[in-house]
Amino acid sequence: MLVLASASPRRAEIMRLMGLDFAVCPASAEKNPSPELGPGEYTSESALYKAMDVAPRFGPEDTVIGADTVVEIGGLILGKPAGAGDAFRMLKLLSGRTHRVYTGFALIRGSETVTGHELTEVSFRDLSDAEIREYVATGEPMDKAGAYGIQGRGCVLVSGIAGDYFNVMGFPACRIHTELEALRRRFTDA
Amino acid sequence: MLVLASASPRRAEIMRLMGLDFAVCPASAEKNPSPELGPGEYTSESALYKAMDVAPRFGPEDTVIGADTVVEIGGLILGKPAGAGDAFRMLKLLSGRTHRVYTGFALIRGSETVTGHELTEVSFRDLSDAEIREYVATGEPMDKAGAYGIQGRGCVLVSGIAGDYFNVMGFPACRIHTELEALRRRFTDA
Repeated sequence: MLVLASASPRRAEIMRLMGLDFAVCPASAEKNPSPELGPGEYTSESALYKAMDVAPRFGPEDTVIGADTVVEIGGLILGKPAGAGDAFRMLKLLSGRTHRVYTGFALIRGSETVTGHELTEVSFRDLSDAEIREYVATGEPMDKAGAYGIQGRGCVLVSGIAGDYFNVMGFPACRIHTELEALRRRFTDA
Repeated sequence: MLVLASASPRRAEIMRLMGLDFAVCPASAEKNPSPELGPGEYTSESALYKAMDVAPRFGPEDTVIGADTVVEIGGLILGKPAGAGDAFRMLKLLSGRTHRVYTGFALIRGSETVTGHELTEVSFRDLSDAEIREYVATGEPMDKAGAYGIQGRGCVLVSGIAGDYFNVMGFPACRIHTELEALRRRFTDA
């Protein structure tokens, strides 16, 4: 069985797009990696903590998937906004610039662990304060790293990306597909 | 009123994501632009034909939106596959390479017409023949330019893109949002 160690409805949606059968079992304890890590290592370490929290609840044949996403701009790391004011400040910071989205992932099956991260660059067009306020008022920014959802009303904020789109939604579909296939083959061939 | 002159469920889905209220009224006559045009001009001309076919059915206050998408690789233009064999050949051609997706659009409101196109580069990972056959068997390639859907099972074929993701789905959300706002302002200020 595949187990998604995340409560994110967007990650579940991507796994469904991929045609995967899976159970959802969010990690209960959120442990934070060292803030000294770079954003890529930070997210893969955080993803590993989530997967490690959930893995003991399942058997050695099951594969547990953890993921963590952050937004980085000018050396600043943006997680989920604390409130509407925080969301406004984040979107103001992203307006008219290119930022980086890192999603770290971890796969655990029995004694095997695979971790990694993917980077996607996202460019915002210039946003007026009125537009930002209108977007914040939709409530969409509140549960999302960087205060926007590329797969929602936020689609009109983004002029272009470079990298995996699904990585911005929170789950690097192509990379995880490849890693899951490799993991499956290692167990089948063993 | 906004009118989408396209039967594509993906274009309607993106307009809903954008939070737009609209009616769907597909063009009935498909007129093809001159094959001598480059892919960008070809798609915007084709989008204009669709919008022009539908516009006379609506009033001068309504805005009709047409769109057309093609895939280009090595000078070859790929539309929708004619059957499973054709889909296999297209996907084999795209495997391990970067191709270009052009979506042309046309907006008509009263005597005003706006046309344009957006280009997104899409990179496929290496696909085995077995994988391609498996994907073709899902039926997903059949109604899609280039024989894949990036927003479906096809998400695991694409290692990365450069440009607007929604342009690959068939509707350049950010650009159309900007053009619609500019058109609305021209009418409000007039």
